[in-house]
Amino acid sequence: MSSYPGKSVTVLGLGPMGRALAGAFLDAGVPTTVWNRTPGRDSALVARGASGAGSAADAVAASDLTVVCVVNYDASDAVLRPGEVAAALAGRTVVNLTADTPARARETADWAHRHRIGYLDGAIMTPTTTIGTPDAVFLHSGPADVYRRHRPVLDSLGGTHTHLGEDAGRAAAYDIALLDVFWTALAGYTHALAVAHAEGVTARELAPFAAGIGTILPRIFEQVANDVDGGTFSGVDNPITSAASSMAHIVHTSEAHGIDAGIMRAAEGLARRVIGRGHGTDGFSRVAEYLLRR
Amino acid sequence: MSSYPGKSVTVLGLGPMGRALAGAFLDAGVPTTVWNRTPGRDSALVARGASGAGSAADAVAASDLTVVCVVNYDASDAVLRPGEVAAALAGRTVVNLTADTPARARETADWAHRHRIGYLDGAIMTPTTTIGTPDAVFLHSGPADVYRRHRPVLDSLGGTHTHLGEDAGRAAAYDIALLDVFWTALAGYTHALAVAHAEGVTARELAPFAAGIGTILPRIFEQVANDVDGGTFSGVDNPITSAASSMAHIVHTSEAHGIDAGIMRAAEGLARRVIGRGHGTDGFSRVAEYLLRR
Repeated sequence: MSSYPGKSVTVLGLGPMGRALAGAFLDAGVPTTVWNRTPGRDSALVARGASGAGSAADAVAASDLTVVCVVNYDASDAVLRPGEVAAALAGRTVVNLTADTPARARETADWAHRHRIGYLDGAIMTPTTTIGTPDAVFLHSGPADVYRRHRPVLDSLGGTHTHLGEDAGRAAAYDIALLDVFWTALAGYTHALAVAHAEGVTARELAPFAAGIGTILPRIFEQVANDVDGGTFSGVDNPITSAASSMAHIVHTSEAHGIDAGIMRAAEGLARRVIGRGHGTDGFSRVAEYLLRR
Repeated sequence: MSSYPGKSVTVLGLGPMGRALAGAFLDAGVPTTVWNRTPGRDSALVARGASGAGSAADAVAASDLTVVCVVNYDASDAVLRPGEVAAALAGRTVVNLTADTPARARETADWAHRHRIGYLDGAIMTPTTTIGTPDAVFLHSGPADVYRRHRPVLDSLGGTHTHLGEDAGRAAAYDIALLDVFWTALAGYTHALAVAHAEGVTARELAPFAAGIGTILPRIFEQVANDVDGGTFSGVDNPITSAASSMAHIVHTSEAHGIDAGIMRAAEGLARRVIGRGHGTDGFSRVAEYLLRR
């Protein structure tokens, strides 16, 4: 028996994340309808109690709330915008958990508004394995009343849900910024392991010291955040000239082994341009201000 | 009274790190001689009990062990290699804590060997403020017997000291790899704050979620380390095609605001080249293997 009387949900898109979302709704006792463009992806979920649907229009007509999670907004547009689907969605709500740019999120919110569809744009900040657990992190943006109305069903996905404001692009903006940190750090680590390997150092040998870098980073991030919000860029402990010097050593070592150093070359280039503008005694955080100049 | 009978140390280079090193030796009761190319930097240390020296040759003649920490190996060469300094160092030991490339470290070890100078090449992995505290992290490489002989005096700098092996370039190799992680992550974070700012999101607002990314990274790093050491690059949870798609969203959002996205363009380029070679279902860690191909 449902713990959410009168509430039901439709999940469009049954990739790994869509399946995790639908599974969490089912586990929470929410009546769940599922649909995927490529057929056959719904069988395990139907065996667990989900309702299959013959079309996207039928699927969205089954619930007040539709959650969509596909590869990008080209894909979510292809699912949501055909006339019969848009017509079936009128008066209902879409929560779009697909990842894309803030601009695409805002444009989709405008489309939804024109079609009298309630619309929240969200972002999932944690892996599929966290869905339905306390570790999941969801960000939402869009009208506060729409968020309040559907919050109980969204909460059944587990984890923490944060409403970031009315601007539909805000969740995507957070998502982009956080993915920027994530992917740059991961690219840097992967590159570092390649350079270490070329120097005869294994990832296993480097690991305890890499963990040490991990413990230093939050404090440094805190200082950079204060610099950027405050518009002051103190380089007392570590001027950007030292950063550029370190970066040059990394580029040289990497390229001496024939290893592409394009990421570090780009980072060093930013540091050198900031130094060239007379900010050599500032910290690396001055780069944020440089990037924001037109 | 000295806690290190018969032991004394000379510190060459009195920038922020050199001063921290000399101060820690003094605090530990090690007789300490100091010298800096630009005069006048030694006055506070001399007031604390250090011996000043009129020349680098006089300074190194005062102690069995000389610790040098200057901006790079061009600078340490300029200090150590003049004939009278090299002659005064013969039969003594240099621990070079200057940061540069593994190749420069090895070349300097060869020079020291030719001049009958004991030589360890080290790296300081933590900020000046950690020197003399348990948080300091020092890496050393070079002859094990030289390391054992001077370990008691080095230990007076506090923190943990690790001898990485006989290859003089090994400490620099670790240093380069770890700085690669550090600076790439910091550049990514700084860029992310600029993109967030352009989207109307402050660093303060982003901070709790950025901290969440920080808690995820160690686990991901662990998996990437296993992939690189094992030569398997599982992309089951997160194929590199998804990474490339995320990276493209970051590039587009950044450039839509007129913000340089060169770092992420370089990272995306690596991902695209790996995909182009038929590894699209692998994880991003496959990039390490791609980078190591000649």
